Amino acid sequence: MSSKYPEEFQGIGIVDKEDWLHPKRVSFKPKEFTPNSVDIKIECCGCCGSDIHCAKSDWFELPHGQVVGHEIIGHVVKLGPNCSSGLKVGDRVGVGAQVFACLECGRCKEDNEPYCPKFVTTYCQPYEDGYVSQGGYADYIRVHEHFAIPIPEEIPSELAAPLMCGGITAFSPLIRNGAGPNKRVGVVGIGGIGHMCTLFAKALGAEVWAFSRRGNKKEDALKLGADHYVATLEDKDWDTKLFNNFDLVVVCASSLSDIQIDKFVKVMKIGSSIISISAPSFDEKLVLSPMGLMGVKIGNSAIGSVKEIKTMLDLAAEKNIKPWVETIPISEKGVNEAFERMENGDVRYRFTFVDYDKEFK
Amino acid sequence: MSSKYPEEFQGIGIVDKEDWLHPKRVSFKPKEFTPNSVDIKIECCGCCGSDIHCAKSDWFELPHGQVVGHEIIGHVVKLGPNCSSGLKVGDRVGVGAQVFACLECGRCKEDNEPYCPKFVTTYCQPYEDGYVSQGGYADYIRVHEHFAIPIPEEIPSELAAPLMCGGITAFSPLIRNGAGPNKRVGVVGIGGIGHMCTLFAKALGAEVWAFSRRGNKKEDALKLGADHYVATLEDKDWDTKLFNNFDLVVVCASSLSDIQIDKFVKVMKIGSSIISISAPSFDEKLVLSPMGLMGVKIGNSAIGSVKEIKTMLDLAAEKNIKPWVETIPISEKGVNEAFERMENGDVRYRFTFVDYDKEFK
Repeated sequence: MSSKYPEEFQGIGIVDKEDWLHPKRVSFKPKEFTPNSVDIKIECCGCCGSDIHCAKSDWFELPHGQVVGHEIIGHVVKLGPNCSSGLKVGDRVGVGAQVFACLECGRCKEDNEPYCPKFVTTYCQPYEDGYVSQGGYADYIRVHEHFAIPIPEEIPSELAAPLMCGGITAFSPLIRNGAGPNKRVGVVGIGGIGHMCTLFAKALGAEVWAFSRRGNKKEDALKLGADHYVATLEDKDWDTKLFNNFDLVVVCASSLSDIQIDKFVKVMKIGSSIISISAPSFDEKLVLSPMGLMGVKIGNSAIGSVKEIKTMLDLAAEKNIKPWVETIPISEKGVNEAFERMENGDVRYRFTFVDYDKEFK
Repeated sequence: MSSKYPEEFQGIGIVDKEDWLHPKRVSFKPKEFTPNSVDIKIECCGCCGSDIHCAKSDWFELPHGQVVGHEIIGHVVKLGPNCSSGLKVGDRVGVGAQVFACLECGRCKEDNEPYCPKFVTTYCQPYEDGYVSQGGYADYIRVHEHFAIPIPEEIPSELAAPLMCGGITAFSPLIRNGAGPNKRVGVVGIGGIGHMCTLFAKALGAEVWAFSRRGNKKEDALKLGADHYVATLEDKDWDTKLFNNFDLVVVCASSLSDIQIDKFVKVMKIGSSIISISAPSFDEKLVLSPMGLMGVKIGNSAIGSVKEIKTMLDLAAEKNIKPWVETIPISEKGVNEAFERMENGDVRYRFTFVDYDKEFK
């Protein structure tokens, strides 16, 4: 199929909910172009765990022909007349997991767009006009200019892609909770986000402790910059040994319910925080003993603000931070391969779909 | 009964678990006197909600003849030879809800004695030697010198008493979470601790919002210094009106499970904390949707350190902060009256038992 831009965008979408592992070529109408719209020709896109959650209808019932993907790198091809953020046609930009916020409420004004009640996720969520957002396994994306973020030239596109969601999800709780020199930071779960959390915690100057259930990720974690490694199912006394040790723990496991929360409370310094970045099913419940949380805080963090994304990208450029990426050419076959390998945990630690020009001619 | 100090202390204790509302006169052996011990002749003692929890065996199975009470004011009558904190015989001191910590672990060294694993509560908990601590509804108490805290002369004893547990429980989360000028602080539950939380939040310079289920405490809350009052069951839209409003909410209700946690998350600023001071039964569980906690932290706070108690007492003296106290002469009848009225919510807002000299001659 040849490109029908700007009337129609082409993508790889989930057309059969029962067979979500096998997405197919689809075409779809883009959202209406507004004075603040930016059209981006996509160059590559990361494959995030959220794409799988969404494809499996873990969060919402999936609309037909849904295109996922929210770790998008591409080039600006068209700007609405009211765009004022300084973007030019040809600029390389990234789009993460958010494509809209009101930009007027208290949270937006305080650089907390991810917590705006009018937040629209990059795919699978209706805008106010009813248009359901479509993601980055596609030739183009149209977003509000605020969410098209310039990429520093030092960062290759396929490495910049996973930073746009996974990277910022790891980075935001670190900088919001004081990760830096003379701080001990635990990273729980060394997977797609955890590996970037390890990279960033180290880059910020913290003493980094990687936690995984078993010992099999130790070598990788140390290569990523972890100073210490704890296999929680293999070292039975880790919580006793590490009593009162941590200034921050970021839980990058798929669910807070999966970790031994009582043990983590024990190893935290008083007043410090355990922040989960997981986005489990809405119906998942966390059951805590209020008495067991004594002196420690627990919270959940969502992606990060545009301002934080820019800070993260600048740090990544300056410190040459490189997520571990395996590229896969985008196609029906490529998406299927990535989904199947993600489901099997066969990824160290992120896939980026590339070769968009070959698939979407 | 005449005093048998120092061989035996006299108190009013729970002798029949089924009839905990009617404590009786008891006598008991004090803990062994050590080189760091301080003996205090008790002048008065507040009646805390924890006394009721303990008397009802909500937390532990109650030992026979247990004496509760941990808002103790009295005078030093004897000091061990190794006491080095500067106390003298005759000094007026307070004892709160903690009588022992190791003073050597990381938490103790960081002024977090309430979170020391060797914490011994003022009553109802065994020391390492097996002696079960006995509280302040008694003529004397013997504690480690670290937990005998000088009371500024400006504060009358019957008002100082409730500060030792209820006051510091309110004060610690305020100062640990930045309550002060240009901060909006919510106090949820205007009872024994909530009324002191309102007093202290105001004294620290915060804008104070008092929350109660109904409107009946509005007048009191405003007198205590609240700038605003919200009746959460009567104003259905309060959470919409107060979106993104609070820098801190301290939950002084008897249980976190009792409040509309999802609504409170909505009114919090991003990155801010909801701190509960409740000490519900150990088997009480808090069920949260991790997705519902987005951007906000939740924690539980226990009393406060000795250093914080001193800071609080100095502030109370300087700003003339006065908890609302009704005095009741200590006796079997007096304790019964206080317990029954506490159970019926008929207290505004704290009882202090007085006239110890008359009961314990």
